[in-house]
Amino acid sequence: MTKTLADFQDERQQANERILHDGDNRVTKRFFRLDGEAYEDGALPTKTKELLGLVASLVVRCDDCITYHVIQCARHGVNEAEFEETLAVALIVGGSIVIPHLRRAYARMDEVLATV
Amino acid sequence: MTKTLADFQDERQQANERILHDGDNRVTKRFFRLDGEAYEDGALPTKTKELLGLVASLVVRCDDCITYHVIQCARHGVNEAEFEETLAVALIVGGSIVIPHLRRAYARMDEVLATV
Amino acid sequence: MTKTLADFQDERQQANERILHDGDNRVTKRFFRLDGEAYEDGALPTKTKELLGLVASLVVRCDDCITYHVIQCARHGVNEAEFEETLAVALIVGGSIVIPHLRRAYARMDEVLATV
Amino acid sequence: MTKTLADFQDERQQANERILHDGDNRVTKRFFRLDGEAYEDGALPTKTKELLGLVASLVVRCDDCITYHVIQCARHGVNEAEFEETLAVALIVGGSIVIPHLRRAYARMDEVLATV
Amino acid sequence: MTKTLADFQDERQQANERILHDGDNRVTKRFFRLDGEAYEDGALPTKTKELLGLVASLVVRCDDCITYHVIQCARHGVNEAEFEETLAVALIVGGSIVIPHLRRAYARMDEVLATV
Amino acid sequence: MTKTLADFQDERQQANERILHDGDNRVTKRFFRLDGEAYEDGALPTKTKELLGLVASLVVRCDDCITYHVIQCARHGVNEAEFEETLAVALIVGGSIVIPHLRRAYARMDEVLATV
Repeated sequence: MTKTLADFQDERQQANERILHDGDNRVTKRFFRLDGEAYEDGALPTKTKELLGLVASLVVRCDDCITYHVIQCARHGVNEAEFEETLAVALIVGGSIVIPHLRRAYARMDEVLATV
Repeated sequence: MTKTLADFQDERQQANERILHDGDNRVTKRFFRLDGEAYEDGALPTKTKELLGLVASLVVRCDDCITYHVIQCARHGVNEAEFEETLAVALIVGGSIVIPHLRRAYARMDEVLATV
Repeated sequence: MTKTLADFQDERQQANERILHDGDNRVTKRFFRLDGEAYEDGALPTKTKELLGLVASLVVRCDDCITYHVIQCARHGVNEAEFEETLAVALIVGGSIVIPHLRRAYARMDEVLATV
Repeated sequence: MTKTLADFQDERQQANERILHDGDNRVTKRFFRLDGEAYEDGALPTKTKELLGLVASLVVRCDDCITYHVIQCARHGVNEAEFEETLAVALIVGGSIVIPHLRRAYARMDEVLATV
Repeated sequence: MTKTLADFQDERQQANERILHDGDNRVTKRFFRLDGEAYEDGALPTKTKELLGLVASLVVRCDDCITYHVIQCARHGVNEAEFEETLAVALIVGGSIVIPHLRRAYARMDEVLATV
Repeated sequence: MTKTLADFQDERQQANERILHDGDNRVTKRFFRLDGEAYEDGALPTKTKELLGLVASLVVRCDDCITYHVIQCARHGVNEAEFEETLAVALIVGGSIVIPHLRRAYARMDEVLATV
């Protein structure tokens, strides 16, 4: 994992601009907006929804999604113990094939919590 | 979905007894215990962990897992609005292939909330 | 596969009404609308997009999705040879774990083509 | 699991005939032949290859594939202890989402071993 | 995504030679041939089949498969609007976990269309 | 694949230490122990169980898992012909989306067998 969090966020931002501003597909643009709305405060607070996003990203084994939700979780106050319990649920649900992603999630968590 | 919640729970119980009492595999037995411990109260309350279990079950599209976690969520006080927001996160994360499971999850939620 | 196409469509319709009319989640409702728009005529005709939906449903192994797209494909003029070639691509991409779904897809195709 | 092993095998046979004899797709027909050849005795005996097929079917959570490979394993002399250890590997690799399939795999194993 | 298209194709070619010429497995060699035949012109033209391959690659989230089919699609005349609509179908079917692959698919599409 | 086997093993070791020694989650620690126990000699020898782990890793398309089990298989005496047949089963079960992982598995196998 040589890519820094800053690089991750720059590349993500640029790629999103390619899709949303230079691109010309209404369905895709609307989906991106919906993706944001799904995590807004509601009956459940954003913090809980970001934990939902993190556990979902882990069991489907999507590293970029994991990095994104680790950042979002930390922004909404998730602490190390809460992260570890969420990762443990993902590990039990998804099995040993989650472990490589768990390793990277711990590294991202350490990076993110060090900068909060 | 012709199987009632009561039948679901009876069959689940019997099948678990086959594996855990008549069966003879230590790894499997220990995994089942770990699977219970992962949802115990800790830094995060069981209610939140059951929501994590539900969203994970939806994005990996496992109907029996969904039914189980819908039951557990309701037991720990998840209400209809909280269920709907959790299902919406799963739908956005997992896409339209989640929809058949979402339909069944709504039906299970209605069944479970009617009996709480 | 004892459920008839008519029953499949009735149950689907009722479950969608539960989610969209009795339900109260804006993200979910908007996603359902987007799901419809993605298959509208555009640079690619709906017929091609329904074939895309069918192959995607097969490789992710979602039987309800397969049934839905088989119906939609037939409505947009997909014939038996075109169905068979689409199923073959899905089989090569997704491997032998697609076969149980391929068997059911052939049965649904036969049902649907018999009523066109 | 109301479908008997005999019904499973009859339906499987009929559906394969629809695809292979009434159907007209060369790629699909050849894939079915390859699927048979992959499990033939070679550097590894068929018994080991059927265990490979079983564990693969469990981690990708395909019930029909599991039933098929349980039957094939028993035909090639897999005993209950060997089954249980294979199922345990699948459970550890694939996590708790494998459990519903594990329950059905145990039931199929019991059926099959009772008739060997 | 530092690997250029040329490097991608060189590495792919060399790895295939290792498997097909230095390797000695008949099942694997035949599968590779079948994989080529599945996309040949038939009732559906190769262009449509490559779009099927692309959408399938996206929903199962296989970056190398996506790159390969983006190249093949462009060779068979798929234009930017057709690409965007295919990517949108994949996004709706597979949800937000497809987004990291969508970003890379857009970048590959831009590379490929710039050299056609 | 620029990461050497030695680097792979060093990084894996360090990341495991972060999780197991600096980390503080009992469920995760126990799962890691169970993951080791699942492959111990029993009714089936470790060699066969490592082949099970390899085929499972291939069909769920987890490169780190594949590298790990290729190393373990070689340590337990799996030869090239046995590797190739296991990879062929995985290819047939999981389809062409396994191919990028198959290419990397062959490269890892060559590396590992060269150092045995």
